[in-house]
Amino acid sequence: MSPDSAARHLPYGVFSVGGGDPRVGVAVGDRVLDLSVALMDPLFARPSLNPFLAAGPAIWERTAQQVGAVLADESTAASSMHPVADVALHMPIEVADYVDFYSGLEHATNAGRILRPGQEPLKKNWRELPVAYHGRSGTVVLSGTDVVRPRGQVPTTGRPELAPTGRLDVEVEMAFVVGVPSRLGEPVPVEDFAKHVFGMLILLDWSARDIQAFEYEPLGPFLGKSFATTISPWVVPYAALVAAAADGPPQEPAPLPYLDHPQPRGYDIELELVINGQVVSRPRFVTQYWSAAQQMAHLTVNGATLRTGDLCASGTVSSFDVASQGSLLELSLNGTQPLTLADGTQRGYLEDGDEVRVSASAPAAGGGRVEFGDAVGRILPARTLKIMAKRQV
Amino acid sequence: MSPDSAARHLPYGVFSVGGGDPRVGVAVGDRVLDLSVALMDPLFARPSLNPFLAAGPAIWERTAQQVGAVLADESTAASSMHPVADVALHMPIEVADYVDFYSGLEHATNAGRILRPGQEPLKKNWRELPVAYHGRSGTVVLSGTDVVRPRGQVPTTGRPELAPTGRLDVEVEMAFVVGVPSRLGEPVPVEDFAKHVFGMLILLDWSARDIQAFEYEPLGPFLGKSFATTISPWVVPYAALVAAAADGPPQEPAPLPYLDHPQPRGYDIELELVINGQVVSRPRFVTQYWSAAQQMAHLTVNGATLRTGDLCASGTVSSFDVASQGSLLELSLNGTQPLTLADGTQRGYLEDGDEVRVSASAPAAGGGRVEFGDAVGRILPARTLKIMAKRQV
Repeated sequence: MSPDSAARHLPYGVFSVGGGDPRVGVAVGDRVLDLSVALMDPLFARPSLNPFLAAGPAIWERTAQQVGAVLADESTAASSMHPVADVALHMPIEVADYVDFYSGLEHATNAGRILRPGQEPLKKNWRELPVAYHGRSGTVVLSGTDVVRPRGQVPTTGRPELAPTGRLDVEVEMAFVVGVPSRLGEPVPVEDFAKHVFGMLILLDWSARDIQAFEYEPLGPFLGKSFATTISPWVVPYAALVAAAADGPPQEPAPLPYLDHPQPRGYDIELELVINGQVVSRPRFVTQYWSAAQQMAHLTVNGATLRTGDLCASGTVSSFDVASQGSLLELSLNGTQPLTLADGTQRGYLEDGDEVRVSASAPAAGGGRVEFGDAVGRILPARTLKIMAKRQV
Repeated sequence: MSPDSAARHLPYGVFSVGGGDPRVGVAVGDRVLDLSVALMDPLFARPSLNPFLAAGPAIWERTAQQVGAVLADESTAASSMHPVADVALHMPIEVADYVDFYSGLEHATNAGRILRPGQEPLKKNWRELPVAYHGRSGTVVLSGTDVVRPRGQVPTTGRPELAPTGRLDVEVEMAFVVGVPSRLGEPVPVEDFAKHVFGMLILLDWSARDIQAFEYEPLGPFLGKSFATTISPWVVPYAALVAAAADGPPQEPAPLPYLDHPQPRGYDIELELVINGQVVSRPRFVTQYWSAAQQMAHLTVNGATLRTGDLCASGTVSSFDVASQGSLLELSLNGTQPLTLADGTQRGYLEDGDEVRVSASAPAAGGGRVEFGDAVGRILPARTLKIMAKRQV
């Protein structure tokens, strides 16, 4: 494997060391290469990847080559390296719009069966277009940020009550990050995906099922999702995923021409959902029905723009097979069949103190695997706030 | 009326003159006062209001007083003034998250009856909480930006087809703009509204009804709304609207305590919807059921943050009375009873070339009226794109 092909596998992130300014680095095993020093380019002396992402594919490629050259000379590289353990990681991107797709056929089917029993699980639009909604950009947080159990209106037999959610779930997702913006009114076709989109990361779509169930008609999820969405700290370039390309599931009926995307349109990314140290599921990203390029083409077909920092999540990566399901909604059948963890405790939904960790990896060109940085969140109890106490008397 | 109370009525915007850098100004009749010059403060030598908005209520108040003092001396003021006709207006804010509420009781009832005939028009959540969804921040555009008719998947008797929308609508709304951010996990109560929220503007929620109808289940509107949302160029501070405070409609049942908002919770803002120069409706904002402060309290009760530049639209301002309805969906009963315009042409929905203009005003303290700047958009035909032609063969 030549140095520059190895460098294409490296994930990009933002870090600081010793209280210094945040800057861009790449992860090299258990070390971080400071690109602002190694490449002496002000593009990397920035607190987010956005300027680099906006620079486009030629710069992404040139940077990978430059990183390869730096790493080829260990003595040069060493002077720009820090052990990961010594750095603080920051949000890798400044999120523009956050969109959450719903592109797993098996997840959408499972969720439909559980939440709308007796009805056709998939709405009639599902196989025609990648269904999605806009989420809250302002509460996308870095891996490691604690997740405070949210309050909201939860259904009861009478009127709803304001209470901490009793059905706190997490959905395992991947997300793509947009680099190069598009122009208002100009759809971006499937084949231009690589001109605009830089890479992928892991995303945890925290969901309060009871809040969501009461609020979502007719305009979709709002407070049931908006309290937090966790992303992994490293963005893996699509250029690192060439060897992971794989055929996705067949699409029946064939999509309308603007969504046509020949195989391979999937990626062989293997995920692990870990709760309190125990692997509870191994979702496989290759099962996703709609590809990222199809999602992008759909998102822009009405003329909507892409912006640098747009974050588009895949939807829950799941399966009919319980060993690969990507949410507790599915794994516990909405809490009715709790999981038993190693310590003997049971989980219908997440409890205070639980730690959720999702990791992902994919085959690398030249052998080995591309490792995505983990996305982690720990559940804190709902807060009792002075104002809440005052108003709820 | 003292100079400084007059100055509290002035709307804030961003302008440039002669190709210079955008900066912050206030509208004084048909002139713009350049605050970066008049107040010699770098806070106003910026291309958006966001830094000023983030500065908080004490600075907002001090600025109003300073503007009052400048305007009291006409010779001083004149040197910092430009005729509005000589300046270019820019987006007043950098939009963080865009949320569209659905807080008009009469609109939600009308829409439910038209779109889901035979069912209860209001979902059971409607009177319990201000229903809302996140929209696309990246396509919020300045008044005057043309609106290209969007393409999308529209229903047919068989499979949907990709076509320009045949049901292009506009919803008349007001929106509030957040200044001071809040902290993750800390709900902002109703009574803290004025500590965070700066002012209001007019918002046009363009809607492709056929695209929306096919896509919206179960996750809400997406491409049916995301192609464009128009805002007026001037933000009117809430401090200018003291004399417009008015009782909103009664809330039955009484909301949960975290949404309690004593009267007056409404604003007596009168709007006009004008199509091709003809007034077709006069919506009254005072009819809105949920107040802006209730919307803000609900938005944050799950711990979601407010950020500077968050834009929260009211939902369509409408009425059971056809003279005050704020959308063509309602005015034409989903196209079945077209309006007749002055030139004799009929409108079920908007046609290419149509110009939509919405104006708004409210009673000012000391007499007269606070005028919001108009929000205007003209419909351009759907574009035939090379790539679309190629793929659709």
